[in-house]
Amino acid sequence: VTGPESGILTSPVECVPSPLPTQAAGVWLFPDGFERLVADIRTAIDALGDSEGFTRLSGPPVISRETIERAGYAAGFPHLLGTVHRFADDDKAWRELRHDATSQGEWHRQQQITDVVLAPAACFHVFAQAAGAAIGVPVRFAVESYCYRHEATSEPGRLRSFRMKEFVFLGTAEECVAWRERWLHTAEDWLRDLGLPVRIEAASDPFFGTEGRLLKRVQAQQQLKWELTVPTGDDPGQAVASANYHMHHFGKAFGIRGPDGQPVHSACTGFGLERIALAVLRGPNR
Amino acid sequence: VTGPESGILTSPVECVPSPLPTQAAGVWLFPDGFERLVADIRTAIDALGDSEGFTRLSGPPVISRETIERAGYAAGFPHLLGTVHRFADDDKAWRELRHDATSQGEWHRQQQITDVVLAPAACFHVFAQAAGAAIGVPVRFAVESYCYRHEATSEPGRLRSFRMKEFVFLGTAEECVAWRERWLHTAEDWLRDLGLPVRIEAASDPFFGTEGRLLKRVQAQQQLKWELTVPTGDDPGQAVASANYHMHHFGKAFGIRGPDGQPVHSACTGFGLERIALAVLRGPNR
Repeated sequence: VTGPESGILTSPVECVPSPLPTQAAGVWLFPDGFERLVADIRTAIDALGDSEGFTRLSGPPVISRETIERAGYAAGFPHLLGTVHRFADDDKAWRELRHDATSQGEWHRQQQITDVVLAPAACFHVFAQAAGAAIGVPVRFAVESYCYRHEATSEPGRLRSFRMKEFVFLGTAEECVAWRERWLHTAEDWLRDLGLPVRIEAASDPFFGTEGRLLKRVQAQQQLKWELTVPTGDDPGQAVASANYHMHHFGKAFGIRGPDGQPVHSACTGFGLERIALAVLRGPNR
Repeated sequence: VTGPESGILTSPVECVPSPLPTQAAGVWLFPDGFERLVADIRTAIDALGDSEGFTRLSGPPVISRETIERAGYAAGFPHLLGTVHRFADDDKAWRELRHDATSQGEWHRQQQITDVVLAPAACFHVFAQAAGAAIGVPVRFAVESYCYRHEATSEPGRLRSFRMKEFVFLGTAEECVAWRERWLHTAEDWLRDLGLPVRIEAASDPFFGTEGRLLKRVQAQQQLKWELTVPTGDDPGQAVASANYHMHHFGKAFGIRGPDGQPVHSACTGFGLERIALAVLRGPNR
């Protein structure tokens, strides 16, 4: 067995160890060899964007809760969003709870929400940084972070905690549509070159919240979210990347304005690093 | 101005960008140049451990809640621990909450705790993997993950979300004490070579929970936790690394037994990657 002709695999495919399961379904540990494959995939994605002069950022796995509220994610995806809580009362109150601080105990019944949540996507770090800015367009960012989504199922590849690398573009509507179109095909070609039988599919989930309804209507003419999917044993098409056009949703939500004083439009291309690694290891015929 | 004679800085110190603040105090974004310094520090720490044959793992920023409960961290550090919650009720219930899903809204009043928390230290990933095992000793792991601690203050270097690299050793009491002693000085020498005016200080915080009282008494003869500190503008000694001996605390908590059938002892050496990077950028005289 040889690996796909991707140039990404530095070891034979059968020598790359798989992620290790943990007690929490969908949460995995990454052995060194798998981690090196992820690093190689990251490097290859960076290289795809080299000529475009992205400003590169790395985000932590948590993000300001207010950012996610403004983005509309809390309203739209409450089941997936992980909010961070802690015990905020005094030592005296804790002395009454702490004897319950075992696996079955209800020590957490007084937890209070904090000012951070787990980042559901890497691009939110960028929109938060650009909030309130009047920018010369187009502006380009490359951003990576660990993301969390509280998925209900945990089949292979359904990671709840995973790394996402995104290219983010802020500009006019026309620029965003053209940029997104180009990146959709750049990503498709790259994934094909990795030996992955990738398909482009229209994503059916609307964007955010009430505005989702509006956006859904727009999708008839102007598809907002394309997913690049690879079949797995369990799933006819699991998304490994996506190319998205947000219209002026984030420009409006974060008060980011272009030279004309209007909310900027935005687009992004996202890559799921572990999912791509797992698809590469599975190979085209597995 | 030239950088410290560390060999770690690939650019002049004044060319390495600082982390960018976000809306959440103590939560920072990392520009590319800073990220490359972190990567160089990681590589240098890995090299320190090269001869010892550590099994290398990378952990996600979340970890099974039960793991942290078993470890005693929930009982001992409830103010620092970030628990992950989400909305677990049905769509009908959400329709009544979602109009509150704004920055000031109380949309989160029905959040329920999940089965994961934010990892407070990287070594817990290792203890969870080894749980229930009968092992040949000594066993060595190198593990890195994003960690979270809900620190009350947010002076420079007080990151709530940060990366920690740890070497973890499981063995007999004598082996652990000797290993910890050796790594304390390996870490000290390495940090000095980076140009950092590091000092070794006995950590005053006890280990976990009720057992903390026991361990505190032991500290008189056998210091359990040493910190390697560097003075900053605001702080006479901020820890950038630590060397710890846990006795059989984790062996007992996780049912990890040695060849004699008794709970193994453990030790670890932890490095705070961003804190070391910030100290290197500050330089010895800043």
